[in-house]
Amino acid sequence: MSIAIIYPNRDVSAWVAALKAHDPTLTVEVWPEISDPGRVEYVLCWNHPEGVLQDFPHLKCISSLGAGVNHLLNDATCPPDIPLVRLVDTGLKQSMAEYVMLGILEHLRRVPEYRLQQQRGEWIPQPVPPISTVGVGLMGCGEIGRYVADKLTAFGFTVHGWSRRPQQVLGVNMFAGQDRLGAFLANADILVCLLPLTAETHGILNAKTFRRLPRRAYLINAARGAHLVDADLLAAVDSGHLSGALLDVFREEPLPKEHPFWAHARITITPHIASVTNPRSAALQVVENYHRAVQGQRLSNRVDRLQGY
Amino acid sequence: MSIAIIYPNRDVSAWVAALKAHDPTLTVEVWPEISDPGRVEYVLCWNHPEGVLQDFPHLKCISSLGAGVNHLLNDATCPPDIPLVRLVDTGLKQSMAEYVMLGILEHLRRVPEYRLQQQRGEWIPQPVPPISTVGVGLMGCGEIGRYVADKLTAFGFTVHGWSRRPQQVLGVNMFAGQDRLGAFLANADILVCLLPLTAETHGILNAKTFRRLPRRAYLINAARGAHLVDADLLAAVDSGHLSGALLDVFREEPLPKEHPFWAHARITITPHIASVTNPRSAALQVVENYHRAVQGQRLSNRVDRLQGY
Repeated sequence: MSIAIIYPNRDVSAWVAALKAHDPTLTVEVWPEISDPGRVEYVLCWNHPEGVLQDFPHLKCISSLGAGVNHLLNDATCPPDIPLVRLVDTGLKQSMAEYVMLGILEHLRRVPEYRLQQQRGEWIPQPVPPISTVGVGLMGCGEIGRYVADKLTAFGFTVHGWSRRPQQVLGVNMFAGQDRLGAFLANADILVCLLPLTAETHGILNAKTFRRLPRRAYLINAARGAHLVDADLLAAVDSGHLSGALLDVFREEPLPKEHPFWAHARITITPHIASVTNPRSAALQVVENYHRAVQGQRLSNRVDRLQGY
Repeated sequence: MSIAIIYPNRDVSAWVAALKAHDPTLTVEVWPEISDPGRVEYVLCWNHPEGVLQDFPHLKCISSLGAGVNHLLNDATCPPDIPLVRLVDTGLKQSMAEYVMLGILEHLRRVPEYRLQQQRGEWIPQPVPPISTVGVGLMGCGEIGRYVADKLTAFGFTVHGWSRRPQQVLGVNMFAGQDRLGAFLANADILVCLLPLTAETHGILNAKTFRRLPRRAYLINAARGAHLVDADLLAAVDSGHLSGALLDVFREEPLPKEHPFWAHARITITPHIASVTNPRSAALQVVENYHRAVQGQRLSNRVDRLQGY
């Protein structure tokens, strides 16, 4: 009985070590070096090649190596009857909170201007807006979104949240559903997208959405590249309606060399590093879910294939 | 009876408006346009010309326009018997917390590398250290330092504090006095200076201090320029012992054009914008202290001239 890690072309030795630290009796193998596919009961995967999940006849659970599961849902060869789970660990939530906090503060505190000034040898203090006057709009209030909201409100930001279904989030001014999207957006001086990627949210960061934001709003997308209509963002920034954007995710990754985001002065890009799963903090839930799967118990962080997350 | 604002070459109309919003009966004049110096009871000043404070025979209180008071203590012509006060407002503390949080996250999340990568069209994810493994060392645990420490610990950082005299700060691992400076520094992967500038702290950010930091430590100085020995920082960064620095304050401001900090690849400078007093949030304490001064009551945020803060 074994766990297989499928993460092509990546060094996963930290994962193997972290899993064995929690349970030294585990057999952990790294694809494609699988000694006996018939013994694999649990697969931990990211960017797996299509079809590979059919190689394991006794699979009891498939786990994403991150919070996202689109790579699994989009694979038509993914066995439909095997439960899917995803990782929700504090390291991942914290890493996202750091990225969002950093992006917001860089924008508010005029970091790009100061970098240019330093290059030019200019000393020009810029005004600082009081944090109480800045509305942060958070799209997506799941496990990660609520954690990020909590860190932002503790720091002093006014946070407005938008989710598909009504929910209460402590300290957050919540809006739910398509009907309330416009009212939500009108408050978002800084719009942060942390949504899962579903049929409903695909392309949600588009020209219509941008028009409903306050003038000079700023966008941070740390969810999935397909949430964003790239051309609509370029038009909104170039027209001056949006002041800029920070993007961590793209429709094609790595972002193709010729893409206009690379050289745009008001668009900052990072190579999908916002929310990084840390094997040391995430391994425990994998080990626990492995034992639950083998024993037929209820799994944690189970994915609803219809909802898409 | 009036308040005089002395802030050469700056537009202080927001200050005048904010003071009058709290008390419309106030007379507020802006130096050098003072109709009758004999009627001035309260001076609010920053970067005042030496000697000017002697022009007001009926002064009851001198207030700094910020948290720092060195401009007053260093002016030998500042009337010795008039009480000094400084501003301690939430806007100022919050502004400092934002700057420190931003500086720490930019360093941890490798912002300078990603900016270079974007310029070069490179997509290279860098490892992210878990926040729990990063020690932030905070020099100076007064009003501002304690507020910053509180925001950092709430966000997840492990904070070590150093102060002149022993004190307890919730959630912070405190060290006090010269004897414990070495033990404090050994924990500071990121050293943040928020000290008042006194005879004891002048030049405290020097080669000896840097040697006691962990290898590849990072420095953030948002206190006063004279805390830092510039040449020692350059040597420590160039040797690779320190990984870099973020500096907001300098011995001479604006930083002279020929200073090596401007062009150093691993030193980031900002034009003294870390902690900005916001007239809207700070005006109330000025109005309250004005009335206390006129009525001979105990002043808030009084400066001890011997201690230097």
